[in-house]
Amino acid sequence: MNLQDIVQRSDTVAGRRFDRIVLLLIIASVVPMSLSTVTSFSQMWLAVFAAAEYVIIVLFTIEYVLRIVTAERKWAYILSFYGVIDLVALLSFYVTMFWGGMLDLRAFRALRLLRLFSTFEFARYAKATVRIGRALKYARDEAAVFLFATLVLLYIAAMGIYHFESEVQPEKFDTVFHSLWWAVVTLTTVGYGDTYPITVGGRIWTFVILLLGMGIVAVPAGLIATGLSRAIEEERRAARGGEEED
Amino acid sequence: MNLQDIVQRSDTVAGRRFDRIVLLLIIASVVPMSLSTVTSFSQMWLAVFAAAEYVIIVLFTIEYVLRIVTAERKWAYILSFYGVIDLVALLSFYVTMFWGGMLDLRAFRALRLLRLFSTFEFARYAKATVRIGRALKYARDEAAVFLFATLVLLYIAAMGIYHFESEVQPEKFDTVFHSLWWAVVTLTTVGYGDTYPITVGGRIWTFVILLLGMGIVAVPAGLIATGLSRAIEEERRAARGGEEED
Amino acid sequence: MNLQDIVQRSDTVAGRRFDRIVLLLIIASVVPMSLSTVTSFSQMWLAVFAAAEYVIIVLFTIEYVLRIVTAERKWAYILSFYGVIDLVALLSFYVTMFWGGMLDLRAFRALRLLRLFSTFEFARYAKATVRIGRALKYARDEAAVFLFATLVLLYIAAMGIYHFESEVQPEKFDTVFHSLWWAVVTLTTVGYGDTYPITVGGRIWTFVILLLGMGIVAVPAGLIATGLSRAIEEERRAARGGEEED
Amino acid sequence: MNLQDIVQRSDTVAGRRFDRIVLLLIIASVVPMSLSTVTSFSQMWLAVFAAAEYVIIVLFTIEYVLRIVTAERKWAYILSFYGVIDLVALLSFYVTMFWGGMLDLRAFRALRLLRLFSTFEFARYAKATVRIGRALKYARDEAAVFLFATLVLLYIAAMGIYHFESEVQPEKFDTVFHSLWWAVVTLTTVGYGDTYPITVGGRIWTFVILLLGMGIVAVPAGLIATGLSRAIEEERRAARGGEEED
Repeated sequence: MNLQDIVQRSDTVAGRRFDRIVLLLIIASVVPMSLSTVTSFSQMWLAVFAAAEYVIIVLFTIEYVLRIVTAERKWAYILSFYGVIDLVALLSFYVTMFWGGMLDLRAFRALRLLRLFSTFEFARYAKATVRIGRALKYARDEAAVFLFATLVLLYIAAMGIYHFESEVQPEKFDTVFHSLWWAVVTLTTVGYGDTYPITVGGRIWTFVILLLGMGIVAVPAGLIATGLSRAIEEERRAARGGEEED
Repeated sequence: MNLQDIVQRSDTVAGRRFDRIVLLLIIASVVPMSLSTVTSFSQMWLAVFAAAEYVIIVLFTIEYVLRIVTAERKWAYILSFYGVIDLVALLSFYVTMFWGGMLDLRAFRALRLLRLFSTFEFARYAKATVRIGRALKYARDEAAVFLFATLVLLYIAAMGIYHFESEVQPEKFDTVFHSLWWAVVTLTTVGYGDTYPITVGGRIWTFVILLLGMGIVAVPAGLIATGLSRAIEEERRAARGGEEED
Repeated sequence: MNLQDIVQRSDTVAGRRFDRIVLLLIIASVVPMSLSTVTSFSQMWLAVFAAAEYVIIVLFTIEYVLRIVTAERKWAYILSFYGVIDLVALLSFYVTMFWGGMLDLRAFRALRLLRLFSTFEFARYAKATVRIGRALKYARDEAAVFLFATLVLLYIAAMGIYHFESEVQPEKFDTVFHSLWWAVVTLTTVGYGDTYPITVGGRIWTFVILLLGMGIVAVPAGLIATGLSRAIEEERRAARGGEEED
Repeated sequence: MNLQDIVQRSDTVAGRRFDRIVLLLIIASVVPMSLSTVTSFSQMWLAVFAAAEYVIIVLFTIEYVLRIVTAERKWAYILSFYGVIDLVALLSFYVTMFWGGMLDLRAFRALRLLRLFSTFEFARYAKATVRIGRALKYARDEAAVFLFATLVLLYIAAMGIYHFESEVQPEKFDTVFHSLWWAVVTLTTVGYGDTYPITVGGRIWTFVILLLGMGIVAVPAGLIATGLSRAIEEERRAARGGEEED
């Protein structure tokens, strides 16, 4: 049995074992990643977590190299969805290690968790992931337009509230950039309550923006849901059609 | 008339009376359960509520045993939707009674309220419940993927905000676990306002996470709605088709 | 021309004029209703607003009596959508006038605004209203089940948070009824920030409840939207079918 | 080559170059518009930003005049979607320049950003925009009814909460207009936390209004999403039908 059968295939005993080890490694990697933020641990424990992170990253690096080496079409793997996730997760570690003072990208290591769907244990979810990808593609342009409209609306909302509130609450609506924070928190309906309008004009503006905004911000999620529902339906119909033809 | 006709059937007079008594008992059980939390009641009243709870639980236990005894396929009942609800509601009481100091599961007794749909008075809602179950099954894998993606996104959001805010607000973003609370409150758009980012980096991170998150967190509800709408449509078409064929 | 032609029909000159007067009266009635809450007005002005409200209610009472008198099927009108709205709006005034100390129902006078859709100026919206009614009927049972599930979930959420938080924050989670307020504010994702969990257990409970809740609370709106979309589609297909047959 | 080919067409070299210059100008115009709100800049820089705004507005005015002059059907352009956006963006500047003390409409200049979709670089998004427009038209009447119902609900919510809270919190629920602010913040589920009910009656009222409101406020976004999904589907079917006929 050669290396390729172990790394690339999941229908051999060794291949499944390799998949399962990677799966466990991904799940295990969450532990030191999380615990290293708990600074109340003693120095010794923090050193253990850091060491564990180094071991894990070495193993992931070996796995990544193995995947490229054994791949028949190397660029196809590197540019695939899971290839990109692997690369981003690895780079986020190495960049942080070398330029951590400037740029801390550790958060993106967690992207690797999405790899769980690629292992054979989750084959049925892998199918669902493919359907989701197709649904996203389906309404991609419309979602992009709504996303851009959201950005423009955020900017208009921020410009408007700056005009109404900057004189009354200069510490909160200092510039249009400060006002953008209010716009994000309001249009997503999070509403922390750290910044809110107190003038009559600002409140009417908030009302107008929210009426417009709720019909824009929530649409992409709705598009994904209906697109996905349609993709499932088509697949089912195709499956039924195929059965009837047999 | 034997016991089986009373407990299992709802098309006999005694069966309907049994159903109606259980229905009233379920509704009545809410009263002592709720009032026992009002500690401003006198000790005597609290004792009355506790006693009422014991009486009710004895009645429910008898009913549960009766249902198993009279069922033709006992395991089928125990593992059915309402069988599991009954068991959880009973166990939540007994566990709390014996190990209440360690584990208080009383909240789950309220699950029993869902049993109302199983009584014959609500037959039409029982049908709707079946359709909902079918709609949930329909997009189950996709919903699971989105749920998992939500969990990963929450983790990434928490890791990122920890990086930006932990130094400036150490009391609120102490560890990644504290930051997870912020992530939950923000991505569900609840936004209590107890924790929110104050650095520029943390605010931009919140913006990015919300743009991604709103297209992920709201999708499962949309999937259920469209799946359900489709299930209703198919049933109606089938009904119409049947009529036309007659 | 008799009274019936004026009140009941909208295809005569006098009927249209009657409709338009009612329309203006409805819109005008908002002014004294709103301004009477501005207590900073002088006593004289408040008396003017009160007087205007009496005049308006007399006119609406006359209109309601006229509608019943001229209706061919009187009970059909009284029990129709707009008949009930008229009655509720009138009763809310009279009840408040006589038992205002005990029961203030003035808010419901505003329901009359929905009557605008019944006037001939808004005929196309009347059609849309009919479609909405059909869409609501379409998924009525499912929506009722989700509404009931929401109520049960609110109760379970309140019972759970009471268990976790009542000892630490007794002033906010005093009884299960106080906790219900938290449950409502949280599950609707309003999140005022007046009550929120501070224990680890309470926060995990909030997370679990929100994950479940977001897939339940938002579904009815989605059901209405998809049902409505389907109703529009069917109508359009029927219209096209009719054209093709001509 | 005449002026018309440059301004109106995008299939000539000069036309594309013209389009691209306008595109860059639109993006560039955001910079001085945003930075002019950062009052911590020195007077000199603020003067530079103001000057840049004047230059940009002169260029946009020239472009607008050119578009009208070279248009074959001048009114058709002026009343088109992008013609109206251009006019509003220009007028918002000139109105602010001359009556800025009274009326500051600068926020609406940002509407011009929507023009990006009209340039040939974004042809595919232009198509998506057309589909969105069709989807909006599709459920226009229903969305209008829901919007109006939202307004009536906001008013009823405000009248009700005024009744419950105005005596206890006179500074926050002073008049029905103050209460409307609470209604807007609550029904959109933003929930800043600056105003919230504290009486039992006010809280039950909030619960009732939210149960009704969540089934109304979120529907328009759902209508747009399902309508859009349907529009995409029809277009795809038409495309497939065309292919089959070939």
